[in-house]
Amino acid sequence: MKANGKEILRRFFEPQSIAVVGSFKEGFFGGYVLIKTVLEAGFRGRIFPVNPAYREVLGLKVYGSVKELPESVDLVFLIINAGSVLPVMEDCAARGIRAAVVVSDGFAERDAEGGHLQEELVAFGRKKGIRIIGPNTAGVVNTANGFNPCPYEAGYHRLPKGPVAICSQTGMINPQAYPYRDLRCGVSKICDFGNKSDVDECDVLEYLEEDNDTAVISMYLEGIRDGKRFLDVSKRVTKKKPVLVLKSGRTQEGARASASHTGSMAVKDTVFDAVCRQGGIIRLDTFQELFQVPKIFASQPLPRGNRMGILTVTGGVGVMAIDEGARYGLEIARPEEKTISMLEGIFPGAGRMPVDIGPMMAAVKDTFARYPRILEAVMTDQNVDAVLNVIWAGLGENAKDIYLRAYEPLKGRFPKPLVTWTYGPDSNTARDLAFGLEDLGFPVYSDAESCVKALGLSFRYAQIKGHDASGKHPSRTNPRPLGFKRGG
Amino acid sequence: MKANGKEILRRFFEPQSIAVVGSFKEGFFGGYVLIKTVLEAGFRGRIFPVNPAYREVLGLKVYGSVKELPESVDLVFLIINAGSVLPVMEDCAARGIRAAVVVSDGFAERDAEGGHLQEELVAFGRKKGIRIIGPNTAGVVNTANGFNPCPYEAGYHRLPKGPVAICSQTGMINPQAYPYRDLRCGVSKICDFGNKSDVDECDVLEYLEEDNDTAVISMYLEGIRDGKRFLDVSKRVTKKKPVLVLKSGRTQEGARASASHTGSMAVKDTVFDAVCRQGGIIRLDTFQELFQVPKIFASQPLPRGNRMGILTVTGGVGVMAIDEGARYGLEIARPEEKTISMLEGIFPGAGRMPVDIGPMMAAVKDTFARYPRILEAVMTDQNVDAVLNVIWAGLGENAKDIYLRAYEPLKGRFPKPLVTWTYGPDSNTARDLAFGLEDLGFPVYSDAESCVKALGLSFRYAQIKGHDASGKHPSRTNPRPLGFKRGG
Repeated sequence: MKANGKEILRRFFEPQSIAVVGSFKEGFFGGYVLIKTVLEAGFRGRIFPVNPAYREVLGLKVYGSVKELPESVDLVFLIINAGSVLPVMEDCAARGIRAAVVVSDGFAERDAEGGHLQEELVAFGRKKGIRIIGPNTAGVVNTANGFNPCPYEAGYHRLPKGPVAICSQTGMINPQAYPYRDLRCGVSKICDFGNKSDVDECDVLEYLEEDNDTAVISMYLEGIRDGKRFLDVSKRVTKKKPVLVLKSGRTQEGARASASHTGSMAVKDTVFDAVCRQGGIIRLDTFQELFQVPKIFASQPLPRGNRMGILTVTGGVGVMAIDEGARYGLEIARPEEKTISMLEGIFPGAGRMPVDIGPMMAAVKDTFARYPRILEAVMTDQNVDAVLNVIWAGLGENAKDIYLRAYEPLKGRFPKPLVTWTYGPDSNTARDLAFGLEDLGFPVYSDAESCVKALGLSFRYAQIKGHDASGKHPSRTNPRPLGFKRGG
Repeated sequence: MKANGKEILRRFFEPQSIAVVGSFKEGFFGGYVLIKTVLEAGFRGRIFPVNPAYREVLGLKVYGSVKELPESVDLVFLIINAGSVLPVMEDCAARGIRAAVVVSDGFAERDAEGGHLQEELVAFGRKKGIRIIGPNTAGVVNTANGFNPCPYEAGYHRLPKGPVAICSQTGMINPQAYPYRDLRCGVSKICDFGNKSDVDECDVLEYLEEDNDTAVISMYLEGIRDGKRFLDVSKRVTKKKPVLVLKSGRTQEGARASASHTGSMAVKDTVFDAVCRQGGIIRLDTFQELFQVPKIFASQPLPRGNRMGILTVTGGVGVMAIDEGARYGLEIARPEEKTISMLEGIFPGAGRMPVDIGPMMAAVKDTFARYPRILEAVMTDQNVDAVLNVIWAGLGENAKDIYLRAYEPLKGRFPKPLVTWTYGPDSNTARDLAFGLEDLGFPVYSDAESCVKALGLSFRYAQIKGHDASGKHPSRTNPRPLGFKRGG
């Protein structure tokens, strides 16, 4: 009896009641931290701690066993030694519990004996209709209902809310590991599959497909369990939302290490690549990108074509940006006549792509008074589908104001993505300007290459969605003001 | 008559006297900023401002023309309109000046007329034995003598001193653009070639080859002027010091933009790649890497082989690191028996690579008391040639102390590189720990992939230098405490 995936999947993210079986000793890991975190994150469901050695924790009554709980629960967390998991699962089954997060390690990732234990656990779950996330997982998060049951101390409880769902086969994606508040990556859901013994990428993709809080899905995978189903599900989901995947275990040695880490079965990288292409999935290259690339999808409209406009204060970066763009099929835009003559009118030689205002800045006194009109001209240009803006944050006190004034009037007017790189002699000044622009809804990346890559992947997804040059699909205008609020 | 390259090149970096021809109006660009910066950076040579409209600037007497100078100078800066450059150069020639930095733009990067002007300028320089950096350049820096004649306002004057020389065809590398103080990239020399009409990468490589303050050379190029000479010089220099090159204009469109930017001639990327391989040059992929990759060469010994040891608190990153390592020929090390039994003694399953202390941390109370011995065991292991350490900066107040105590005793003991990635729920905490480790002389990179790349390029350079497995070449031990002092 395999339980209905979609219905039960909801219990992992939207439970009305949870049980937590584990130690409640204070420390940086365990049931105590988990309960403290959900309480402080504002979760309003009922919470039942379970441990025969305690009577009360954090003001909650502790029950001696799952059998003694006053009611069944939507979801149970097991943070106990591996050998005790199956007996407790039997109690769970007896109480009609249908969803379990098994945080415990010591299963397939440890050794053959652990692998055997894991098989027994999965078989039991199947028989009783209990879906399992894990084992060896750091769990799940849902920011919509304050459900942040992280078993590791992160030092904070509320994640920034936003449209990005992050799923992974490593605890590296959880709040204790990645600085979500500082990254300004607004999150809808997090799911750590752990050893992925039962609930897998396909189950969660199907759940996220219908989750209104999620606009972009970002996943780290060490393997896929069912290639055929993954392809089917991907094809459907990627027509609605971009799905970004970082896959490790690409090399033989990496695959071997992955087997130790989560007991993953290897899949040939060329095969996986073909599945991604057919399924409309966009592959990423680094961990950072899991959290950074979603920003453009969360806030910017898709481009209608591959013509990149570049505005820059430094010619060298313009040249690099063109090279980088070519990797993703972006071409440098050829500006309209009216843009050319407007720019040439300000400074001879400025009327071409990349629009390099470096020489102008040194020679034309009121370049910065003209800056908003220059940026607007590039955004308005009908030959430009996507825009990279490179800004020098080194003009003194009023630099931030000048740039924010130039961006403010662009909000919501153009059906094309705009990404920005801010640089300068002082990192804090550059970062402060970046935050200001992101607060307006325009994403900023930490280097020029990442900006171009974001535009390139946005163009790639436009093609996947059939959104490009055909022009048949109405585009949102930018920005969609999601996910850049500073975290609480 | 072409002047003796090496002798005159010294004048650009070690002048006893300079003349500055330009405007002395206060602003963010020009002669005023240049003179203010060299004065405040502590340059002790004689400075002669030249401009008929001024009598005094920053306490210095201003001369009406180069002809009126009381003495000849080692180096002249021209920050005047393009059309005036040649007439002033005639005065310079008459006064016996042999080295000129032409900051002025409006030459080959502008249009055909500018290209013609540039040809005239170069021909004149050749005839009179005047070497020229530029035009369209932001100049040079030498931190050894406080010579920081940057024509752009950077907000600071003293760059952090260190062993890294940075050369480029864009002003992006200059103090006003890159946050050298924050990047903790200790600099020996900077040279912006600008349009590279005369002094080029080969001239500067030959100068840096013999510069005792420079241990690593990092270059951004849009083209090379003389392939044959570049290959000859590279072969010689790379046997002494690593030479890292980022080259743009890789694509046709990029090359076209590069022609507009600095008037560079394109060179086929496959050809350039072959030259780099033969010349022992290491190619980089991003601007950031120009400033980040040198750290490992500046502070760590070269590895004797390709066996990478990994210590991590998160298995997912271990898997990624192995995949990344494979790109650079790194293999995962198989630890010695004594390392394995020591680790298994602490926690079953810990005695293998990557050494994942994540499960141990959750289960073994005194993991952190044992941490220094674990790190030392990996560093001591004879089967390990290079080490990646992944640290979780989320343990509360005393995390930094614990890690610093573990690193302190490693200083100067092992002939193998150690790089570290620090991560955690709070960026500032992770950064503070990173700075602490770097102050001890161990480089930290901003993501795990960059750490592995640094190790991989270090291994590649060991091969170039003939330093690897043969074991014939004595290795320095780490760390070499250079370049990580916080900037002044």
